[in-house]
Amino acid sequence: MKVIRDPQKLGRLIKEVKRKGKSVGFVPTMGALHAGHLSLIKEARKENDFVAASIFVNPAQFGPAEDLKKYPRPLKNDLLLCRKQKVDLVFLPDQQAMYPQGFVTYVNVEELSNRLCGLSRPGHFRGVATVVAKLLNLIGPDRLYLGQKDAQQAIIVQRMVKDLNFPVKLRVLPTVRQEGGLALSSRNVYLNASQKPQATVLFKALSLARSLIDQGQTNAERIIRRMKELIARKKEARIDYVAIVDLEKLNPVKKIDQDCLICLAVKIGKTRLIDNLVITHEKN
Amino acid sequence: MKVIRDPQKLGRLIKEVKRKGKSVGFVPTMGALHAGHLSLIKEARKENDFVAASIFVNPAQFGPAEDLKKYPRPLKNDLLLCRKQKVDLVFLPDQQAMYPQGFVTYVNVEELSNRLCGLSRPGHFRGVATVVAKLLNLIGPDRLYLGQKDAQQAIIVQRMVKDLNFPVKLRVLPTVRQEGGLALSSRNVYLNASQKPQATVLFKALSLARSLIDQGQTNAERIIRRMKELIARKKEARIDYVAIVDLEKLNPVKKIDQDCLICLAVKIGKTRLIDNLVITHEKN
Repeated sequence: MKVIRDPQKLGRLIKEVKRKGKSVGFVPTMGALHAGHLSLIKEARKENDFVAASIFVNPAQFGPAEDLKKYPRPLKNDLLLCRKQKVDLVFLPDQQAMYPQGFVTYVNVEELSNRLCGLSRPGHFRGVATVVAKLLNLIGPDRLYLGQKDAQQAIIVQRMVKDLNFPVKLRVLPTVRQEGGLALSSRNVYLNASQKPQATVLFKALSLARSLIDQGQTNAERIIRRMKELIARKKEARIDYVAIVDLEKLNPVKKIDQDCLICLAVKIGKTRLIDNLVITHEKN
Repeated sequence: MKVIRDPQKLGRLIKEVKRKGKSVGFVPTMGALHAGHLSLIKEARKENDFVAASIFVNPAQFGPAEDLKKYPRPLKNDLLLCRKQKVDLVFLPDQQAMYPQGFVTYVNVEELSNRLCGLSRPGHFRGVATVVAKLLNLIGPDRLYLGQKDAQQAIIVQRMVKDLNFPVKLRVLPTVRQEGGLALSSRNVYLNASQKPQATVLFKALSLARSLIDQGQTNAERIIRRMKELIARKKEARIDYVAIVDLEKLNPVKKIDQDCLICLAVKIGKTRLIDNLVITHEKN
């Protein structure tokens, strides 16, 4: 496994790989790898000749009051995990290499970036789109792997790939959960012992929504109200948003009569967690 | 010579070309080709195995009050010229193919886009950066050819290529001029018989600046004043801007003691023309 920090060195290596006609799968990460990331890497390993992962805590997607500094960086273990999964290349740039002095170019996926998580994290998705554009240009993968847990991110990246004609196929893989349903996230390490059980309330609220829909409820507002009531029972839970939106424009839907995304962001203590569930109309 | 309108068909062809290990040179144009464009194509022909040109009047870079509709589109002649220069591929998409419904992603080269031409053409360089990003992704060239006449455009595209890590080398080739010094532009056809001689005043003003500098003048403000006086003598000339800026950030310079760009935009009647001159410090 090669670990490369220098973008230009990366470019040369990738050129070599492509000259050999190898297909390239790419898994972008901020490190602190968990079983969710590993499921992406495993799928990439299955589908491609060459697997590249990146580990880069991208400052452009953190707000000034957010957790950029304390975001976990267990680099040694991350590299160990990558090696175990037979990753061919880990790209490990520093901030200076990615955002050198004079950097002024940003990719904006308008409309989709200012709702849901974008409302409480202004600039976040601009940072995501920009760094993904950079990484796609650096690595030139045939396939890009993202997790469904970050549903809005996946939808925004898909939109960017389509709009800017990136020659890559996006694969979005299911959220990996631990016992109790908590979606795996690198930020789960912030939760203390009393918060951990409370954090399962996101999945419980989604499960409640699912069962209401299965029972025939189609009124989005009522489903959201029931979810909010459930979450409010947890002492340390503060709701950022609970929403039911369409999958294309992320506009709120009133009636569950089309494919839609039920998504929520909840703070447990100081830790902001997100989760979501896709409802496909055929299932109703 | 292949003429391709469909982006997906283009993608398949380009993949084929790359699989053969051919180098690709790309000349993006809005058509109405003149000797300036042809100089780019000729250079691309010299330096690459495969030459692609695009002809697309990009609506995203026109303001609502600008000349999108009346912009010249002599397609038949353009294709003839491309064929003569042994272009391998002309990409000729329509608006719908480039900006399908739901399109929301834009590339912004901040700071550099809001000065000089960007002041009187808000959104123009966002449109340029976005379409160039799209075309680079569609064509994946090794080398991209632009003209020095659009100096700010070249600087902005260079910045975007660097910031977003596009794996392409930008080549900026000298402005081609007709007798009297008028820089070739597809918009010159808008000039009537009495305006044409007046339009040479842009080049005359630049030549004056050059001779003042050669005589030892280093005060940017004085040079600009002299240029403006010269232009003001032409009846139908209205100055948009005359500026002397650095080549990196396009900030105004006070003293000509570094590499800089002398640039101007002047309306001759209703036709907005631009021109520029790079001063390299070594020459002074």
